[in-house]
Amino acid sequence: MKHHSLFKYLAPIGVIAAGIISAHAEEKPIIHDGEFEFVKKQHAQKWAAQDKEIEAKLANIREKNDGKRPNILYVLIDDVSFGQMGNRAMNYVMGIKTPSINKFANEGMSLMRMYTEPSCTPTRAAFLTGRYAVRSGIKEVKVALVGEGLPENEVTIAEVLKQAGYNTAHVGKWHQGDIEQAYPHNQGFDYAVFPLHQQVQLSLMTKECADANNMFGFAPHTQTSEFDLDSKFRPTGLVTGVEAVAGGKAKEVDLQPGEEWTQDHYVKMNYRYQKQTLDQLDKLAKEDKPFFLQYWPLWPLNFVNDGEENTTLNGGFHAEKLQKIDDFLGEIFTKVDELGISDNTIVVLMADNGLMYHYAGTSGLSELIYRGGKTNHLEGGVRVDAFVRWPGVVEAGSAAGDMVFVSDLFTTFARVAQATDYIPRDRVIDGIDQTALLLEGEHNGRRDYVYIYENDLLRSVVKNEFKMHLPAPGVPGAAAPVYNLYRDPREENSHIGMALWSGASFQDMVKRHMMTIKKYPHNKLGKGAPYEGIENLRPESIEAVKTFTSWQ
Amino acid sequence: MKHHSLFKYLAPIGVIAAGIISAHAEEKPIIHDGEFEFVKKQHAQKWAAQDKEIEAKLANIREKNDGKRPNILYVLIDDVSFGQMGNRAMNYVMGIKTPSINKFANEGMSLMRMYTEPSCTPTRAAFLTGRYAVRSGIKEVKVALVGEGLPENEVTIAEVLKQAGYNTAHVGKWHQGDIEQAYPHNQGFDYAVFPLHQQVQLSLMTKECADANNMFGFAPHTQTSEFDLDSKFRPTGLVTGVEAVAGGKAKEVDLQPGEEWTQDHYVKMNYRYQKQTLDQLDKLAKEDKPFFLQYWPLWPLNFVNDGEENTTLNGGFHAEKLQKIDDFLGEIFTKVDELGISDNTIVVLMADNGLMYHYAGTSGLSELIYRGGKTNHLEGGVRVDAFVRWPGVVEAGSAAGDMVFVSDLFTTFARVAQATDYIPRDRVIDGIDQTALLLEGEHNGRRDYVYIYENDLLRSVVKNEFKMHLPAPGVPGAAAPVYNLYRDPREENSHIGMALWSGASFQDMVKRHMMTIKKYPHNKLGKGAPYEGIENLRPESIEAVKTFTSWQ
Repeated sequence: MKHHSLFKYLAPIGVIAAGIISAHAEEKPIIHDGEFEFVKKQHAQKWAAQDKEIEAKLANIREKNDGKRPNILYVLIDDVSFGQMGNRAMNYVMGIKTPSINKFANEGMSLMRMYTEPSCTPTRAAFLTGRYAVRSGIKEVKVALVGEGLPENEVTIAEVLKQAGYNTAHVGKWHQGDIEQAYPHNQGFDYAVFPLHQQVQLSLMTKECADANNMFGFAPHTQTSEFDLDSKFRPTGLVTGVEAVAGGKAKEVDLQPGEEWTQDHYVKMNYRYQKQTLDQLDKLAKEDKPFFLQYWPLWPLNFVNDGEENTTLNGGFHAEKLQKIDDFLGEIFTKVDELGISDNTIVVLMADNGLMYHYAGTSGLSELIYRGGKTNHLEGGVRVDAFVRWPGVVEAGSAAGDMVFVSDLFTTFARVAQATDYIPRDRVIDGIDQTALLLEGEHNGRRDYVYIYENDLLRSVVKNEFKMHLPAPGVPGAAAPVYNLYRDPREENSHIGMALWSGASFQDMVKRHMMTIKKYPHNKLGKGAPYEGIENLRPESIEAVKTFTSWQ
Repeated sequence: MKHHSLFKYLAPIGVIAAGIISAHAEEKPIIHDGEFEFVKKQHAQKWAAQDKEIEAKLANIREKNDGKRPNILYVLIDDVSFGQMGNRAMNYVMGIKTPSINKFANEGMSLMRMYTEPSCTPTRAAFLTGRYAVRSGIKEVKVALVGEGLPENEVTIAEVLKQAGYNTAHVGKWHQGDIEQAYPHNQGFDYAVFPLHQQVQLSLMTKECADANNMFGFAPHTQTSEFDLDSKFRPTGLVTGVEAVAGGKAKEVDLQPGEEWTQDHYVKMNYRYQKQTLDQLDKLAKEDKPFFLQYWPLWPLNFVNDGEENTTLNGGFHAEKLQKIDDFLGEIFTKVDELGISDNTIVVLMADNGLMYHYAGTSGLSELIYRGGKTNHLEGGVRVDAFVRWPGVVEAGSAAGDMVFVSDLFTTFARVAQATDYIPRDRVIDGIDQTALLLEGEHNGRRDYVYIYENDLLRSVVKNEFKMHLPAPGVPGAAAPVYNLYRDPREENSHIGMALWSGASFQDMVKRHMMTIKKYPHNKLGKGAPYEGIENLRPESIEAVKTFTSWQ
């Protein structure tokens, strides 16, 4: 047993530029991770036979819909751990009511073991590219100017579907960076309305939050900064919400020059994205082409009372807004029904990672079931509620305990949209085609493992019920804690008796993963000047960029 | 603020003998705790009006059933925390399947906030007597000989219902002591089959568990005892399962003289109680009188593999048996249907306290949602799943977030059985009549508080969403941690901002409780020679009693 041998792989791998997009690369197989190939070899015949049945089923579904491929509506909620959506008992535990989400959950399949990355940017990148975020060079993106983002040579699901003839639209949180190549309308979306940054700026960096002491150090009126030399250390002049269409420039719409961002702006922004999603549904439903629409709301993140009367027993800032999101989603689902497109629309609702436990208390949401939350590799950080509704295709009221990773949606959406040929063949695609799971139900999943990263650091490896936390550098592999997730969902007892001996099998998995990386090295994070491609930059934003680049 | 004043009440109160049973004490009101009277005063008119409606409804239900009052089947599961029964998502978390329990849960009302005492004996006593166990002098009953138990002058729900004309039967765990007055057939049950002690003896003190090192120190073959002077410190000769009818003697049925207790005996005992419950249903359903049948299974407690092939993903000893209990309950519910008595039978299914986390790991069950488990006052110790099915009366698929304490079932069962007059009027009854909640649904509960004891020590006071942990003796009341249970279900953050200021209101609640105790002091624990009233004591049991009493 060579316990030490695997740890040399754990340092960030040298970044090598990835290849270009190879469109319509039929016949060439999708390149998957070593572990998937290892599992596939064990099921090759069965899966090949099943794939033929699935093709026939999909053709049959299209036939029923006059040849139109299914629309896809992808709703991604921010920072809500497993159990916090779609479960009546947990509603009672938290003192909130989410009847629309619960009803929706019962209309389709509950994916009981959906894994994400542990933070917003990586999960969204993993979905968009079908690849662990680390492969795109993507890490958590900070609140203020970074001059970084999703590289242009990554191929997003929007690009894949657009090439295959879909209309594509994005509404809400984006969080893939502040450089032009990273903007959604430059990454495959025909239409995009989104905040340039994320909710720390939008929901926390307000006068109201400073007054409530929920964001200290930012607002000059709550404390003096008499010794400051660097007036930009406390971010100012950040671009807020922008709107754009593919091929065009972005336009900031939420703030006028000289105007101060407030909680009221944030509330209005949330309502606006809701309205724009409804508007998009109205518009897209009428088109001949099928659509891919993603709605990524900003709520439940919220950190101060906004004057609306609370309606939950909980009263916490996030809990209140999670209930509000339920109202919003109720409207969305009703709209889909009213437009008569329910039967030919796949709706996926899920969260992007575990709860933002850093505000436990006032947020009203705290650890529930799994331990941990946003930013960490424990199940509480990466296990989320996920529901798929596709009436007449995905069994209503069903559930599946098969493992799914968020990037599997990339490959699965491509499959059901007949767009698989547009998936690039020059890079590793982590997304596994889970169409069989959706169409044939539980036990037809094709994944039994997931690697969990915190940014570019591999922190855990999950296989079936077992999860190994990688030991710190220098610590022998024999000391790696292994948990049985059914027996110990909170990952608290790693005694040897709790799981398979952690040695050979997990080491082999790490090796297969690292050797695949060696063969197909990670892409480089996109870099550029922040805020390019915005046509109406406010003077304070221009000033912010100028200062940001002044040291170089 | 007199923070210190309340703590003088916290020492165990001097025990004073309680009065005798005052049968048929109509007109005299039931004596409730001060806190209930305090709440009642705030709702007197509304409740009085509602009670009239409820009387009419109950009369109407009887009329529909040819004047027969409803049967009551009370199923009490051992050591399973909230969320571990009746919830599909949690099934997936734990890697088990409980379709029968989940189906049953959806056929009635889910009581989402059922509180118990934190251990088996106190919870069962609180149910049987309608009183906090501490009022009966009851504490946790140890595994071996104790010469203690439920006092004869306590009035159990079986006695109340029997006086009102019900047939009464008990099958399974009893755990109310090893003295004759405490036996179920001497506490109101016409028929009783039960183990004299509890599952530590039955499931842990076996050769198999000793070999597996799950119960060390007990079996001589797994370690020497060369320095022992006291051969009875390691219990031997304990009575196992007995059977009896009211007025008769108990007869041991599970073990022959000289025979050693084994895992196989335990398995058989579980199957036997299941069969006897089914037999009782067959028998009781045919009678003119309505019945009260309690089935208190021994499983899921189990600590070693019994040779049956495991069928769960979890594979843990308790997890496996929880799934087995699901099979058992499926049979029971089917039987109730087949007998044609479903519509006039109230079935309550719940657990007696939180999980036995002491065996987390091999048991397969660990903390889930709430923190803590059996033996402690945290929500994980005292919050359990509870479901009430009464077709046509209790709304199918409904849920209620109102607080309920296990003793409320005493008073509520008496009410629906028209047996309220037999509830004694000379002592405090903690059980609150929750018939309105069952018949009128959520928000019609009449409890917004509960006191949580660990044995005779008051450890927590709950009011609505707030929970105060009592500070240790000598610690100022201002330091008492208070939690908001919706925002912080795991009771981890007691910062002042998380809950109402802990001062006056909680202190008042403790005072009202203690002043009620002062007026109606606690009963004395029943005492006597162990094993009296057993007609076929084995020689080894006689020897055990002889040694037990030899020091006096």
